[in-house]
Amino acid sequence: MSRIILASASPRRRELLGILYPSFEVIPSGADENVTAQEPAALVEELSRLKATDIFEKQDHKEDALVIGADTVVAFEGEILGKPQGSQHAFRMLEKLQGNTHQVYTGVTLCTLQAGQPMIRTFHECTEVTFYTLTPEEIWEYIESGEPMDKAGSYAIQGAFAKYVKGIRGDYYNVVGLPVSRLNQELKKMRAEIYEKGSNL
Amino acid sequence: MSRIILASASPRRRELLGILYPSFEVIPSGADENVTAQEPAALVEELSRLKATDIFEKQDHKEDALVIGADTVVAFEGEILGKPQGSQHAFRMLEKLQGNTHQVYTGVTLCTLQAGQPMIRTFHECTEVTFYTLTPEEIWEYIESGEPMDKAGSYAIQGAFAKYVKGIRGDYYNVVGLPVSRLNQELKKMRAEIYEKGSNL
Repeated sequence: MSRIILASASPRRRELLGILYPSFEVIPSGADENVTAQEPAALVEELSRLKATDIFEKQDHKEDALVIGADTVVAFEGEILGKPQGSQHAFRMLEKLQGNTHQVYTGVTLCTLQAGQPMIRTFHECTEVTFYTLTPEEIWEYIESGEPMDKAGSYAIQGAFAKYVKGIRGDYYNVVGLPVSRLNQELKKMRAEIYEKGSNL
Repeated sequence: MSRIILASASPRRRELLGILYPSFEVIPSGADENVTAQEPAALVEELSRLKATDIFEKQDHKEDALVIGADTVVAFEGEILGKPQGSQHAFRMLEKLQGNTHQVYTGVTLCTLQAGQPMIRTFHECTEVTFYTLTPEEIWEYIESGEPMDKAGSYAIQGAFAKYVKGIRGDYYNVVGLPVSRLNQELKKMRAEIYEKGSNL
């Protein structure tokens, strides 16, 4: 694969993919319409697949390209929490999450061409995150920092909010937005599969 | 507390304490001799206490100072793994840890003066870390990056090694070197205790 393409605009995903590849292209996909999945794992898988295939189809030399799409959602008691629409919304989300355990799902799709056929691999990782209790004052102080506004679930685990995260169960980088170690494993499997099939990729 | 003092030279601990305090002093302690504890939790607690009290005792105006000491060790099947002495030693450690789950213990001691008496609070956090399997080639590649050399257990969770960390159970920052969220809770308790006792700190 001579061209690695990340189909995401997230600077955090860009930084994390840098752990696996010294250089790659970034071509964000706007494709996230008409999703049918309701359940978080199925939803992030579907969204990552939409993004990866959207960018893959737009490439002229598909045989050289590997496109990586990803999507992250936060789920609490079966409800999916996206990005907040304003500070009151962020407050309601954080009020639910404080003192409790929620789930963070990231779906990833790898898309390339193998012997003239598209080769698509989709997976997801789930990480459980537990917060200490927060007072309404602490929640407002965090909202006023501006950080929650573009984050699923209204928080970033890697920022100022770290002081309220009691613990996690699963991959930390999955919560940041890209399950780097699982992705590394899936890339290894994909390369082995391509090699077995005698492709010259 | 008008002066917060971190009794550690670790740049990672410095960065993490910055989540709780916009500014503080750093006075590393060399006190880590003559420890008696054998068990990892007791050992990191004792080492953190030695460091914090060493720096605290050297302060002229103790009533204004809060000293924070910390120590981290990696344990695997009851054995404590410190910093490696050379690359062969690092290889043997990583060969043990790969494909397995180990424990990371960080002990923290807070030291201040309350109504003329030293007030010392010590605690520890344990995080379980699981690695994917690594080939000898992958271990050597990582050792050659130079990163393992000053790290307990011969790895840094926040660096290039992230691609081999399958998951954790507990606080991520505890593995980096300072359990920020637990420390935040303990500082709150300490402030409440001081307030109840009617100190003017």
